Amino acid sequence: MKWIEQELLRRAREIDQLLIEFLPSENGYPPVIHQAMRYSVLAGGKRLRPILVMAAAETVGGNLRSVQPVAVALEFIHTYSLIHDDLPAMDNDDFRRGKPTCHKIFGEAAAILAGDALLTLAFEVLAKSASTCDSPPPSVVLQVIQEVAQAAGTLGMIGGQVVDLESEGQPIAETTLEYIHRHKTGALIRASVRAGALFSGANADDLADLTEYAEDFGLAFQIADDILDVVGDERKLGKPVGSDLRNEKSTFPSLYGLEQSRKIAQDSVARAVARLARFGGRARFLKELVEHVIERDN
Amino acid sequence: MKWIEQELLRRAREIDQLLIEFLPSENGYPPVIHQAMRYSVLAGGKRLRPILVMAAAETVGGNLRSVQPVAVALEFIHTYSLIHDDLPAMDNDDFRRGKPTCHKIFGEAAAILAGDALLTLAFEVLAKSASTCDSPPPSVVLQVIQEVAQAAGTLGMIGGQVVDLESEGQPIAETTLEYIHRHKTGALIRASVRAGALFSGANADDLADLTEYAEDFGLAFQIADDILDVVGDERKLGKPVGSDLRNEKSTFPSLYGLEQSRKIAQDSVARAVARLARFGGRARFLKELVEHVIERDN
Repeated sequence: MKWIEQELLRRAREIDQLLIEFLPSENGYPPVIHQAMRYSVLAGGKRLRPILVMAAAETVGGNLRSVQPVAVALEFIHTYSLIHDDLPAMDNDDFRRGKPTCHKIFGEAAAILAGDALLTLAFEVLAKSASTCDSPPPSVVLQVIQEVAQAAGTLGMIGGQVVDLESEGQPIAETTLEYIHRHKTGALIRASVRAGALFSGANADDLADLTEYAEDFGLAFQIADDILDVVGDERKLGKPVGSDLRNEKSTFPSLYGLEQSRKIAQDSVARAVARLARFGGRARFLKELVEHVIERDN
Repeated sequence: MKWIEQELLRRAREIDQLLIEFLPSENGYPPVIHQAMRYSVLAGGKRLRPILVMAAAETVGGNLRSVQPVAVALEFIHTYSLIHDDLPAMDNDDFRRGKPTCHKIFGEAAAILAGDALLTLAFEVLAKSASTCDSPPPSVVLQVIQEVAQAAGTLGMIGGQVVDLESEGQPIAETTLEYIHRHKTGALIRASVRAGALFSGANADDLADLTEYAEDFGLAFQIADDILDVVGDERKLGKPVGSDLRNEKSTFPSLYGLEQSRKIAQDSVARAVARLARFGGRARFLKELVEHVIERDN
């Protein structure tokens, strides 16, 4: 196994531990909501957003302990968005990562409320993060809360989901596809990198380069996802291939073809890597991570 | 019309103006989500939570302008909770305040996302509030965000809704009814009063008294709501009476009888008024407000 693959597994396991620590106890009253939250947060996943938070902090030489609540909060927001996206009124998915979705186990009402609760808890965790000993000044924590809320809101992730739902079953323009990708997944990826950097006291130049890195990373990541849905191995992906085609979703391969899509992704990766030049060896993980994005098979 | 009734109308209209200012434009892309948010926020209501935020600030001599974003944020959170509570998977209500509910107009997917968006926007507005010229120190804003998130979360409002849904159609104990009231509506009312006071630099004694006021206010408010559902005038209430009975919801009148319920509410009001002693004339509005709660007919 390559170094980056080992590191990704190791870091994901670390994040899993953190998530367990930050989640409310399953026995807390009323138990069903806390069980539903734990079920979905601990149902697995690559933990990409918290890994990006921590890696951005590492790259600018930040304190990896103080940034932990930020990493956890971003994964809570990501999980809430998956729970709500899977609901019958939205994408109506019965399975995610091979497991029944939250509403299949706990019912629709509990799933809606578990999503609401994870979003709410994310902001509580962010606001509380200012009271640990190595935390940045309160004004920086407020800036992070503001940016994360913006990225998760109607001009970010929610906006992307709205346009994605509206576009299903009909041909869309290239600009619309790019809007969906930039907002539905890109905004939170960008916010994760920026939050990790801001929390670690990154200067304006470092922050600008990491922001550009995050935008190219998000684009490459999404195109790779689209390509895997066409050419991927069902067992390795943990989900059926060809679902975008069946759901009549426009994707990069359907609009640009496979070869051109690969080229756009490769160009994004090259731009992202170039943005890491100033950080030297501390950016090794972020560099290999974005290169891995277009080589991965799951 | 009594002074308190005039003041309530005047203040509600002021809040309506603020809400319009803080809501994203209906033309913002994608329009449907912004239209759904505006529809539900501007569908009317007593604006009780923002009025309490402003009144708490007034009572401790705070700056009424700097606390405006806090008032708006609390109404956004209240509206999100109504949109999600009305969904088919929850209380399945087609009308609220005589108007079709959000999902009846915009569909379930947009209603779920509009609720999510209002909750997210509330935290963005709170975090941004630190950047106005008269705002309190960032650490106070962070404390308010933390308290509001806790009040809206599973140990507050969401917990109350979970237990309320679980209890429908079956007899419940008095302790369960009190849990539901204290959490489903009480927690956000308490957070509104505390947020207004904290934002205005209230000292520990003022804060303690206003917190007790808020808890008794919340109890009296909820009992009065239960009583109006039994003896109220449908036209003045804007909703059918007897709905709790039809939905087999346990209420104060069903558990304690009308007379005993009135007595509990009156005792709560008396305790709340006593807590305002130290504030003198500045607490006139809060005093008349809690007295009005058990006299109102809508």
